[in-house]
Amino acid sequence: MGYRRIGIIIILQFLLIIGAWDSFSQQNLAEKLGYPRNSKMLIIHADDLGVSHSENMASFEAIENGFVNSASVMMPTPWVLEAVEYVKKNPSTHDFGLHLVLTSEWKNYRWGPVSSINEVPSLINKHGYFHNACSPSVKPEDVEQELRAQIDRAYAMGLNPTHLDSHMGCVFFISTEVLEVYLSMGQQYNLPVLVGSRIPKALIIKYDVKVIVDEILGMSEDEYNNGPSAYYVNALKSLKPGLSTILIHPAYNNEEMKGMTVDHPDWGSEWRQKDFDFFMSDTCKKLLEEEKIVLVTWREIKEALYD
Amino acid sequence: MGYRRIGIIIILQFLLIIGAWDSFSQQNLAEKLGYPRNSKMLIIHADDLGVSHSENMASFEAIENGFVNSASVMMPTPWVLEAVEYVKKNPSTHDFGLHLVLTSEWKNYRWGPVSSINEVPSLINKHGYFHNACSPSVKPEDVEQELRAQIDRAYAMGLNPTHLDSHMGCVFFISTEVLEVYLSMGQQYNLPVLVGSRIPKALIIKYDVKVIVDEILGMSEDEYNNGPSAYYVNALKSLKPGLSTILIHPAYNNEEMKGMTVDHPDWGSEWRQKDFDFFMSDTCKKLLEEEKIVLVTWREIKEALYD
Repeated sequence: MGYRRIGIIIILQFLLIIGAWDSFSQQNLAEKLGYPRNSKMLIIHADDLGVSHSENMASFEAIENGFVNSASVMMPTPWVLEAVEYVKKNPSTHDFGLHLVLTSEWKNYRWGPVSSINEVPSLINKHGYFHNACSPSVKPEDVEQELRAQIDRAYAMGLNPTHLDSHMGCVFFISTEVLEVYLSMGQQYNLPVLVGSRIPKALIIKYDVKVIVDEILGMSEDEYNNGPSAYYVNALKSLKPGLSTILIHPAYNNEEMKGMTVDHPDWGSEWRQKDFDFFMSDTCKKLLEEEKIVLVTWREIKEALYD
Repeated sequence: MGYRRIGIIIILQFLLIIGAWDSFSQQNLAEKLGYPRNSKMLIIHADDLGVSHSENMASFEAIENGFVNSASVMMPTPWVLEAVEYVKKNPSTHDFGLHLVLTSEWKNYRWGPVSSINEVPSLINKHGYFHNACSPSVKPEDVEQELRAQIDRAYAMGLNPTHLDSHMGCVFFISTEVLEVYLSMGQQYNLPVLVGSRIPKALIIKYDVKVIVDEILGMSEDEYNNGPSAYYVNALKSLKPGLSTILIHPAYNNEEMKGMTVDHPDWGSEWRQKDFDFFMSDTCKKLLEEEKIVLVTWREIKEALYD
């Protein structure tokens, strides 16, 4: 092969890369969705559907009568069928994606993989539950087996997910190999995946990620301690043009949630009630209007860029 | 081998059988436990520990401050660790046995086997949960694998079960082979198993069952509809000498239980609250005294006959 031919191939590859870059460029996303170019687009996202009856009920209420317009379901959880039945009975313009799960983090209330536990040994503890935190010891092949099983289970139950995301963000923290498994699921199932702007560009190209969320917002422990409402008010007031998402966990602060989140006030029962309260409130409504925030969904993004 | 020798063997076998019969004879159970010969012995038994936070909390309360003196834990359920932690933190003279599980019977709230699901294919539905009723299609070898896994899991979690019984009585309804698996678990782990007087005597001998419960009481749908309190009052007033157990399901009638038992009023949320109410009541206390009912536990039986 001569130098000239190699040179042409390099140029072609460069153009391909440029083309790929253009395809995931965020500049035109608002226009592609039919909004003005510099819109402040926001997905208000309820994580953790399926985790408890309380979480399900509060999330359904916040979707129907509040400002949550997107949610994702945890397939391995005890109450997942309640969430799936709700989605099937209530055709919605809102999102119902999959909150892919690699952990079982509550003290006395646990779940394990959708896969046979003997097929994913690195994902489980000695009692067959998922580990209680994002574990560095999980093997990418076990993660792939399990994430695929969760997605296949969703389709088998009649749920057509609008997007994929990651419970506790584990897929971003463990290893590049695990992150690649996550991205490859989006590619293989032709679904948008939640990724932020820190993701390596080479992976965006490799897995044909079509949308990056410019800003992923979520309340920290300190911000919660300083007042959840203040955090959310500031988040909405500071929202920048582009695509943002705010990850919340609405639930009712009742006996079930207090039991589930025992000894864990962070993302605990009161915290989740506060999430619910704010995204049901007139304060939230007023801010969304005043700040000219455009609520968008993964469903719209999927229809515009994936289908 | 001569006829004489065969004759001796037959006589020896007959004596062994007679000996076995004597060992499970109920006539002396009261005396063996230190009570008068014709005592009305009663085990007031809370089924279903682990099934929900509500069920756990109400059962703990009914054990501590009511008249429940025996309970059993469902190892495959989401809240089992809460029950196990309670038992470990609260050394008790009461019972904590295992409520061996082959079903996942609630509409929107499900669980599956403790075993790898690919090891027990006949026990699960297409989504990997247990069937929603005692299924005639389960294979004895899968039942054996799973019951053993549940018992081993209990010991691995630090629970030393006082007895074994069967959720929804499935082991009694499916086949003799499944019943034999259940009885063999008692024999292998040297634990009392709940069996009633209808059990074939050949199996009692074969599996060395040392105690038969003369009367197993539990409220039916009709009896519930005629008034739970009336049923329980009558049950206590009609109690016969010998060993009886009354199987109840205490829980608080709250949002979690309403969600769990949705579309299923029988053994539903209100039903379980009524169970709790009666076995916390002064009516119950008075009747136990008036009728000279002796509350006994599987723990006492185990210590007297198994250890």
